[in-house]
Amino acid sequence: MTRPDYMAQALAEAEAAAAAGEVPVGAVLVDAASGAVLARAHNLVERTADPTAHAEMLAIRQAAAELGAPRLEAAELYVTLEPCPMCATAISFARIKRLVFGAYDPKGGGVDHGPRIFQQPTCHHRPEVIGGVREQDCGALLQAFFQARR
Amino acid sequence: MTRPDYMAQALAEAEAAAAAGEVPVGAVLVDAASGAVLARAHNLVERTADPTAHAEMLAIRQAAAELGAPRLEAAELYVTLEPCPMCATAISFARIKRLVFGAYDPKGGGVDHGPRIFQQPTCHHRPEVIGGVREQDCGALLQAFFQARR
Repeated sequence: MTRPDYMAQALAEAEAAAAAGEVPVGAVLVDAASGAVLARAHNLVERTADPTAHAEMLAIRQAAAELGAPRLEAAELYVTLEPCPMCATAISFARIKRLVFGAYDPKGGGVDHGPRIFQQPTCHHRPEVIGGVREQDCGALLQAFFQARR
Repeated sequence: MTRPDYMAQALAEAEAAAAAGEVPVGAVLVDAASGAVLARAHNLVERTADPTAHAEMLAIRQAAAELGAPRLEAAELYVTLEPCPMCATAISFARIKRLVFGAYDPKGGGVDHGPRIFQQPTCHHRPEVIGGVREQDCGALLQAFFQARR
């Protein structure tokens, strides 16, 4: 059976963020075995006045609350942008199995750029990482958002 | 006028965490100008089943929610342990002015160890950092907690 296109769902979240005036990043957390969606979220920094309200953080917190456990060993995270160091560390703490992201983020990313969190010797859990999935669609959303604000 | 001993207040939070079976780390967020306490928090990962519920994150989220703004430029953060990379990045996002921490954390820290978040070229805001304040008291609490669980 073909699995749903989770990155398309993360992109839909990112589009909802853009429509709400938030930086357009979306995330979907999925149970790797069943394919069930555990949580969906998009950036909410402005609306909630919360500097930690990135899509990944909200999805992780939501799924952990629903499962009643701080570790999500069976989960895959789909996110439209390379996670920042805060989110990458949270992904490691949550023991997420696989990270799939869209656009690379040379300026703010913490997975393939900057501190490369999962490559630090002090990082205790490294997810499998797949970057560049629907990279152009994910990046185009961000570019359009920031161009409109200049 | 002598300012209150905010690290003592952060230590009291850490003791409350230990009493609740949480890793004993406490944080107090203070308005640098007035000295008013903006938020107090301790680790709540277990009770809230939230892998992101570190003392620093909770204090930042609480203060930002109360001030209605994701940036806390006028704030100082007192925390009993060197922040991890997740919290250090959140401290940078929140534009916190000064970070004062107690014990150093060679295994999990992200300020003077590991990814040294504030020294990354991609880090946009670096707080003033003072480490090792009441280092022994802060570290002793953590040691006692982990020794009792072995």
